[in-house]
Amino acid sequence: MARASVRCIEEACRHRQEVASRKCACESCGGLLEIQNEFTPAEAGGLKTIWHQRKMSPDAIDRSGVWRFRELLPFLDANPRIISLAEGSTPLVETEQAGDWAGGVRLAIKHQGSNPTGSFKDLGMTACITQAAALGVAVVACASTGNTSSSMAAYAARAGIKALLFAPYGHTSPAKLQQAMDFGATVIEVEGSFDDAFKLLTPLAEELGLYLVNSVNPYRIEGQKTIVTEMMEQRSWVPPDYIVVPGGNLGNASSIGKGLAELKTLGLIERVPRLVVIQADGASPFYRMIASGTAGLIPEESPQTVATAIRIGNPANWKKARRALEWTKGLVEVVTDNEISEAKAMLARDGVGCEPASAATVAGIRKLRAAGRMERNADVVAVLTGHQLKDTAYIQSRLDATPEKFRKFRVPARLDAVRKLVEALLAESQEAVSPRTN
Amino acid sequence: MARASVRCIEEACRHRQEVASRKCACESCGGLLEIQNEFTPAEAGGLKTIWHQRKMSPDAIDRSGVWRFRELLPFLDANPRIISLAEGSTPLVETEQAGDWAGGVRLAIKHQGSNPTGSFKDLGMTACITQAAALGVAVVACASTGNTSSSMAAYAARAGIKALLFAPYGHTSPAKLQQAMDFGATVIEVEGSFDDAFKLLTPLAEELGLYLVNSVNPYRIEGQKTIVTEMMEQRSWVPPDYIVVPGGNLGNASSIGKGLAELKTLGLIERVPRLVVIQADGASPFYRMIASGTAGLIPEESPQTVATAIRIGNPANWKKARRALEWTKGLVEVVTDNEISEAKAMLARDGVGCEPASAATVAGIRKLRAAGRMERNADVVAVLTGHQLKDTAYIQSRLDATPEKFRKFRVPARLDAVRKLVEALLAESQEAVSPRTN
Repeated sequence: MARASVRCIEEACRHRQEVASRKCACESCGGLLEIQNEFTPAEAGGLKTIWHQRKMSPDAIDRSGVWRFRELLPFLDANPRIISLAEGSTPLVETEQAGDWAGGVRLAIKHQGSNPTGSFKDLGMTACITQAAALGVAVVACASTGNTSSSMAAYAARAGIKALLFAPYGHTSPAKLQQAMDFGATVIEVEGSFDDAFKLLTPLAEELGLYLVNSVNPYRIEGQKTIVTEMMEQRSWVPPDYIVVPGGNLGNASSIGKGLAELKTLGLIERVPRLVVIQADGASPFYRMIASGTAGLIPEESPQTVATAIRIGNPANWKKARRALEWTKGLVEVVTDNEISEAKAMLARDGVGCEPASAATVAGIRKLRAAGRMERNADVVAVLTGHQLKDTAYIQSRLDATPEKFRKFRVPARLDAVRKLVEALLAESQEAVSPRTN
Repeated sequence: MARASVRCIEEACRHRQEVASRKCACESCGGLLEIQNEFTPAEAGGLKTIWHQRKMSPDAIDRSGVWRFRELLPFLDANPRIISLAEGSTPLVETEQAGDWAGGVRLAIKHQGSNPTGSFKDLGMTACITQAAALGVAVVACASTGNTSSSMAAYAARAGIKALLFAPYGHTSPAKLQQAMDFGATVIEVEGSFDDAFKLLTPLAEELGLYLVNSVNPYRIEGQKTIVTEMMEQRSWVPPDYIVVPGGNLGNASSIGKGLAELKTLGLIERVPRLVVIQADGASPFYRMIASGTAGLIPEESPQTVATAIRIGNPANWKKARRALEWTKGLVEVVTDNEISEAKAMLARDGVGCEPASAATVAGIRKLRAAGRMERNADVVAVLTGHQLKDTAYIQSRLDATPEKFRKFRVPARLDAVRKLVEALLAESQEAVSPRTN
């Protein structure tokens, strides 16, 4: 029902490359590439039924929350070797307390941390590594703050492809590096920022024939866009008012924008939700560009935030993200590290854990509500991008910084000692419930 | 279609308690309790269709991989407040390389690490905390090697219930404690083993009115048993030959055994797969009991294994697990820490990460194959119980112990330096592919 080609997004260029090209930048002007899918909307009628039926299929391809929607990914040959870990099918969970705290919105989270390697990156990586395998690639590489690297490492291992990771030295969560190494990736720690690492890798990849799997790789965006299809299906195809994502390299904003536009073209949704991008103060060049109305993005030389996953000063996908905001009448906001920390604690009250970058979404919603830029009772889905366990160093730093907020005790293994402690703890919480009135 | 009651599993006792009781041991003889569900098999015909239809439902209860099968959990009142984080719906993934390595079996893994808090415990915890909320419980408590505690912490937070965690001091993965504290649980580190902590908690819970949510709580087993229903559904209701689980406190073996027995009773599967329990050498009292044919379990005083999740010397559920082996013609095997480490590395080649206890399954399959106790080409599902990120300390200890197996380099952010390193790495892997012949 559809044909795919690779096209430059620059309006003045629109150069086309073949799907089999290994390049991640336009051969003509150096611009960003995207996959252009020419769909036939008239044939979309049966898709919802087909996708539902596949939920009962025992085939591996149908157990993937990306490839179950393969009609939206028509770039592959008829019988591709799919490199999948059954990614997707992630939870949509109502978070009432966090929604109240954020200013009275009807909030649900779509938790991408439940993906195989613990982040949203897996959706794009299955598409990208499947394409790499089809192209016969021997070595894949990425620059990464951590989540891309563990995802690349897992899928490359499964495909039998060597993986090289360029990480900013000292600015990656230890758990993410350990994870990538556990999958056998080779780690190159570059003494600089993510942006430095990415800037070094780009020409080297070209020169040495490494296949670049950063989100400038257009196949990444294709896999990643399926998050909105799955989200709409979980909501019986009723779009929310807003979809909120953290903004780092802006791959999420780009892919969600594209996914929504395609669903609308196909007639699978009746209206397009507004896309909201939340950046961290200290790493917010996209916010500044939109807020100030400047024509181009001015990179942030030394991005700073505790949310390492979005600690990016020169986001590669800003043009696609800006287009996504235009398509969806979107919004951008910025939040501080403290606001992120508070939002994370609020999500924890709903039983939801995440890495700090993910909590930026809820912090941003609160700020938009306070400014009257989002309506009370709005129907909002926040995309949580990474697992709580992706950044236990961050949790530990909070335990160390505010020990009074956490409770940990050590006792000898004797009944009397333990009883005494527990009785004291119970009395204490009793006091907290019924404060003395005298 | 069914009625539930709570019954002692001891054949000589069979005392019944009401479903509303808070007790986790038989009031008459102190034995293990279980939920007895009286099903009407004739009414089971439409269940598969109902469960499939619920996959398109936008209701929170239907988005849970436990409560979607609620006909199998008839212990609740008509309109309960369900405490759910959309647990379940976990991936089933073919692992061909690990299957070859294990001795030529058709191996797939069912990855419980994709659950909300990163382990299989969430399936049981949603049932148990839902019951706690229905009973009006104020404080829940557990002894835990880590996974139970983070799960309890998340679900208790969501229910607004205070959570107390008894952890063996120095024998819990740091990530798991950080996770539980991130959800606001109070941690009591007991200077002893898991078994010591559990032994202290049991009488205290009774005395001080704490609701015990360890796997002796029969509602835990009810939620957890749904893993087999979901697994069978993913396989179009064709049972595998074997289901393999790691064995610590034996809650998995108990719940899977009960789940399979109920599915067979209801006519939803035609035959029952054999259940295989793998213990870690150094924490293998159940293995020793079965292998030596002794009548009762002799606890291991000082259990030792790197797989902290199954570092348990006196498993509470051994009688239920033994019964499950009888029902399913099951097997038990034991593996060393080295075998666990090797198996984990093999799973990584298939792109699958897990905590060490989970890898014990694949190590055990290899041993059973080598001994001829499992057939070549057997159709096997290994249940991986915990997420790779649950124990990054273990990954780090492997990196430290065998640095030659891992590749990590640090370079200045200069193109020449990075180029030189990457060229050397590529030449090296080229050499590995085509060794010199002269």
